[in-house]
This record gives sequence, structure tokens and C-alpha cells, in this order.
Amino acid sequence: MMAPNPDRRSERARAAILDASVALCQEEGYAKATMEGIAKRAGVGKQTIYRWWPSKAAVVLEALNETAGSVTDFPDTGDIVADLRTQMTGLVGLLTSDAFNAYATGLIAAGQTDEAIATSVLDTLIRPRVAACVRRLERASEQGQLRADVDPEDVVELLYAPLYYRLLLRTRPITTEQVTMILDLTGSALFRRT
Amino acid sequence: MMAPNPDRRSERARAAILDASVALCQEEGYAKATMEGIAKRAGVGKQTIYRWWPSKAAVVLEALNETAGSVTDFPDTGDIVADLRTQMTGLVGLLTSDAFNAYATGLIAAGQTDEAIATSVLDTLIRPRVAACVRRLERASEQGQLRADVDPEDVVELLYAPLYYRLLLRTRPITTEQVTMILDLTGSALFRRT
Repeated sequence: MMAPNPDRRSERARAAILDASVALCQEEGYAKATMEGIAKRAGVGKQTIYRWWPSKAAVVLEALNETAGSVTDFPDTGDIVADLRTQMTGLVGLLTSDAFNAYATGLIAAGQTDEAIATSVLDTLIRPRVAACVRRLERASEQGQLRADVDPEDVVELLYAPLYYRLLLRTRPITTEQVTMILDLTGSALFRRT
Repeated sequence: MMAPNPDRRSERARAAILDASVALCQEEGYAKATMEGIAKRAGVGKQTIYRWWPSKAAVVLEALNETAGSVTDFPDTGDIVADLRTQMTGLVGLLTSDAFNAYATGLIAAGQTDEAIATSVLDTLIRPRVAACVRRLERASEQGQLRADVDPEDVVELLYAPLYYRLLLRTRPITTEQVTMILDLTGSALFRRT
């Protein structure tokens, strides 16, 4: 019999810790979840968590980022409006799922009083996805599908801000109809059929 | 000598409490401010505050609403884009002021884990101003300055969400250039010169 592979054991512990942090945030909310609670639920010692992550925010952010994962990737079918609709519809599904909602809003809330958390959320979760959307919009621009005189980063803000507005101010539920509304209201100003 | 007017004394105490809550949020942040601290700073007993407000969130929300006050009123010069620019520029000034920022973001953060606070923020701060903007957009629509087939509430969301996106996700500073960008990127799709 071979000795257990320590890398695989580590990977199992890591997955268990991330799963436990998701489950705990979902049940108790981000604010009430603790490192002790996550460790207990994952069946590991607290020191195992601290070996990989410096804080609760860091664990939860990594779990959040893995959940968001490929759901938020940008397709490229050659039609920018269709591809934005696909990606934004995926994001709506994510933002309205219980698991995501419980800790995303909790983390963003924590970021209001903790600059380091706000920066981590931006760097880990937001900026890489904004950059991916900017790249997709730049390709659309090269193909003449996007108004030439606009900054793609401004377009990202205009298209995605309404989703976060509903998420954080809770004015109305986030829906796929909202995606249609956003693309319809901005479409004729921003996009060109080629 | 006449006895002091109890109404005026109450009004002075009320103003002192609201001022104290603003000052305290600005110095320590919303999360760390306490009813004790507000009472001490205002020079009143804690029971005086609880006579008028049920919670810290309620005091701070009222102070916030008074600060926002007339800055966020909608002008009507007959030119919808000019009037939106005026009002949104006023809002930018408010959202970027230290006093407002310290407790607005704190309250919105608290709303993520406390449904009652989220509802109060919506009902007191957000909904009346959305309704005022909707009324201004409806007049613009009657004058043929707004695309006829759009829901004014959707337009409010599209125009204002980018300001709150930067406020809460801190992607970029909120500026008057942002207002110009929003009105420029949406203008040709939404508004008509008459």
C-alpha cells in the first residue's frame, strides 16, 4: 500500500475549507461566520486554514471567486450584443443564487469599513472580469460593432452597474429582463450591426 | 423673563443630536458610532434620543436625509439633459463629501445584513428621490425629449447606478466627468432634442 499523497490530501482539505465557508455564509451570513466555524465544519484545525489564508475575508473571497469562475467568462461568437447578453444572463444567475448572494454582499459590506477587504474584492473579483469584458469590447470595436469614440471601461460600468445597484440597494430583484432592458436602452447609442 | 419654549428646546436638542451623529460617523465611521457616543457629544441623555428614534440607524438615516435634502432636488428648465446634469453634479458633490460618504456607505453596508435597515434606506433615502426623477422624466417625455417607449424608472437606474457602483465597489473615484460620460453614452439612445 502506498502512502497517501500529501498534495492530494492538501487539495482535499482546501476544497473542504472553501465548501465549508460557502455553507456557513449561506446559513449564517458572512458577518457571523468565523474561522472556528469554518474549521469545525471542514474537519480541519484552525491553523490549517491560517496556513493558506490570512483572514476570513481571504477564504471567503477565494470561495466566491471559484464559484463565479467560468460562469462569468466572455464568449466570442462574433456578435457583441448576443455575447454580452449570454454573459450578463450568467451573471444574473450567479448574483441571484443564495450561495453567492450571502457572501458577496457580506464581503462588499465589510469592504465599506475595511480598506484591505475592499481592495481584495476589487483585485480578485472585479478587476480581472472588467478586464476580460474590456478585451471582448475591444475586439467588437475592431469589427466596427462598438461606437469608436467610447472607452470600453466606461461601457462595462454602464452595462454592469445596474445589476450591482439592485444587488446592493435592493430596489428591485435582479432578473434576465433587466439585462434585456439595459441592452435595449443603451444599444442604439453604443453598438452597431455589421 | 419668560419660560423657555419647550418646542424650541426640543428642536435645538434634535439638531444637536443629528449634528453629533454626523460628526461621529465622520470621525469613527458608522459601524463604530454608538448611541452613547452620540448622546454624549450632543449633550443630551440617551433616553432623549430613544424618545425620537428607535435605533442608531434611524438617527443616522435622518441626518443623512437632511444632508442630502435640497441638493438632490430636480430643476426644470425645460431641458431634460441639462437638468439631469445639474442634479447629478449636485449628487456627485454629496457622494464625494466626507460627511456623507462616512455614513452613507456605512448604512448601506449595515443594510446587507439587516433587512430593516435596508428597507429604511430605500424608503427614506432612495425611493422618494427616484420618484422625483421619474416625475421629471415624465414631463420630459410629454415634451418629446425622452424616447417614448422607455420606462422612466429604468432610465433612472441606468443613469444613477454607475455613481453607486463607484461608491460601493470603489472601482474609480466619482467625478463630474463621470456624469458627462453617462449622459454622453446614453444620450443618443434616450433623449431627443426638441
